[in-house]
Amino acid sequence: MKALRIEDNKLKLADSAIPRREGEALVRMTMAGICNTDIEIARGYADFRGTLGHEFVGVVEESPDRSQIGRRVVGEINVGCGQCDLCRGNDPRHCLDRTALGIRGRDGAFAEYLSLPPQNLLIVPDSVSDRQAVFTEPLAAALEILDQVEIRASDRVAVVGDGRLGQLISRVIARTGCDLTMIGKHDAKLELAARAGVKTAKLGAAGIVLCNGDFSRQAPTEVAITKAPRFDFVIEASGSSGGLAVALDLIRPRGAIILKSTFRGAVRLDTSRIVVNEISVIGSRCGRFETALRLLESDEVDLGPLISREYQLAGSVEAMAEAERRGTLKVLLTN
Amino acid sequence: MKALRIEDNKLKLADSAIPRREGEALVRMTMAGICNTDIEIARGYADFRGTLGHEFVGVVEESPDRSQIGRRVVGEINVGCGQCDLCRGNDPRHCLDRTALGIRGRDGAFAEYLSLPPQNLLIVPDSVSDRQAVFTEPLAAALEILDQVEIRASDRVAVVGDGRLGQLISRVIARTGCDLTMIGKHDAKLELAARAGVKTAKLGAAGIVLCNGDFSRQAPTEVAITKAPRFDFVIEASGSSGGLAVALDLIRPRGAIILKSTFRGAVRLDTSRIVVNEISVIGSRCGRFETALRLLESDEVDLGPLISREYQLAGSVEAMAEAERRGTLKVLLTN
Repeated sequence: MKALRIEDNKLKLADSAIPRREGEALVRMTMAGICNTDIEIARGYADFRGTLGHEFVGVVEESPDRSQIGRRVVGEINVGCGQCDLCRGNDPRHCLDRTALGIRGRDGAFAEYLSLPPQNLLIVPDSVSDRQAVFTEPLAAALEILDQVEIRASDRVAVVGDGRLGQLISRVIARTGCDLTMIGKHDAKLELAARAGVKTAKLGAAGIVLCNGDFSRQAPTEVAITKAPRFDFVIEASGSSGGLAVALDLIRPRGAIILKSTFRGAVRLDTSRIVVNEISVIGSRCGRFETALRLLESDEVDLGPLISREYQLAGSVEAMAEAERRGTLKVLLTN
Repeated sequence: MKALRIEDNKLKLADSAIPRREGEALVRMTMAGICNTDIEIARGYADFRGTLGHEFVGVVEESPDRSQIGRRVVGEINVGCGQCDLCRGNDPRHCLDRTALGIRGRDGAFAEYLSLPPQNLLIVPDSVSDRQAVFTEPLAAALEILDQVEIRASDRVAVVGDGRLGQLISRVIARTGCDLTMIGKHDAKLELAARAGVKTAKLGAAGIVLCNGDFSRQAPTEVAITKAPRFDFVIEASGSSGGLAVALDLIRPRGAIILKSTFRGAVRLDTSRIVVNEISVIGSRCGRFETALRLLESDEVDLGPLISREYQLAGSVEAMAEAERRGTLKVLLTN
């Protein structure tokens, strides 16, 4: 079968054996999404070798759980050992011996077929299209924030990053009714968030400026944000090493920064700022798929505008290059 | 009056005017303590100019609140603007316009006299000696941790750092009944904690090894700690830039690291470890003096063994050098 793989530190479309693992289900991928983590993995993050991809929707062709066969599914990406306290407590996401689809010790979803244990699969409701369901994994990752911190309607919240994940997070966090501002570098992406009702601010060489204009008719009006730290929560989803420093500039004393970005390399950080202002920096990764599917079924979050382009699996090398380009949002693969 | 000052980037014993500020109390210092932050300030941290020192006990000589005159007091080090939300909520510790005794915009306690607003002063109970009361500020900073996170008796907790603050924190945290281990580099300091009933482990070139021996009779038996992250909480009080990386090696997924160290300079940090393991990194600074005085009054924490040496104010330059030496714990100044 065709698979987009990292082999010998190179990304290539390869011919690969259909993955059949003892006791697992075989899923024919119908649609998959490219995420920033895939791009970072292709650059060397996580030292991964094998088939990329962890955002997908597909149809079960084989499974020890016969009720799944022929059903449309999405799949939790972490596969735990099944024995440790975390796994027995129904949370293999942090099992020390886990594999993770297309990220750690397990071939991923940018292929004709993928393998996952039957208990990782969730049936997609009929009312949720493939183009919606393919967002289940990143939407769950966005919702994870609300499992970790309590954001109230009176809180001021900033999302740093106007890319794929920042857009999704903004739409999820806006539902709390909080005072939300997206902070980014790209006019078109900020405009997209503004159209969804999110306040936006632009990060420029001169610092952060508010964009309170109508993007479709005029250039954003640049109004300096007061220098006083003002946000109760800052969600760092820039995907880049500079995001945390921006978050530290924006957070109020005793506020919480939620860190979402994973990338190759290290950050230089003045940790005294965290100590003196008693900031909490909270790492945030995978969320619960049930919650994300419920939100998709409610049809309350419009994901269509976040899709930039679709490619056949055969064009997946080109699709990765497209996803890496500035200005691109979600790039999808079809099979 | 004599004062230990930083002037022109140099530490020196200077002759300085008695500090009298409008509306404030004048306190004659009787005893003061040197803390790692003082040493870092002398190295350039916080860009401070003026009289050093923020840990003290003294006697009020003048005050707008006449009931304080002649009383023995300790003093909250942060002086807020009095106008902002934080100050009006009785927490000037994070006021953006605050001064802080011997740290930020306000001469400190390593002098014959110091000035603080009367509302910053707390009367020391008669049963608490000067040698105990001088620990109020660092003890409050240790207790602050228990205002920020809930440590339960079933939790495994590590304190990284066997110095002044690590010793105090260990004694405070041990009172929760948790499974506590101090991790440090110095046999004599680890032994001191072991004598107070705290488990210890040594950080060596080969990694972390348990010290389960009797320090007074034999070298510590070196038993490797399992490589699996195991602590629910890690309190980083090493005072050095390497402490956070050690803490990240020790913390379990979804655990919390409490950061206490302030120092000059930046740390290189792989923030993906925080994200992937969903770690919380929580900055922690000043605590409530009332709580610390209550604990001192209970006489349940034995601080005597933490005092290395006492100097007259006239010998304070030498005292700072002594406090900086490896193996030294608390150095006190008397007036």
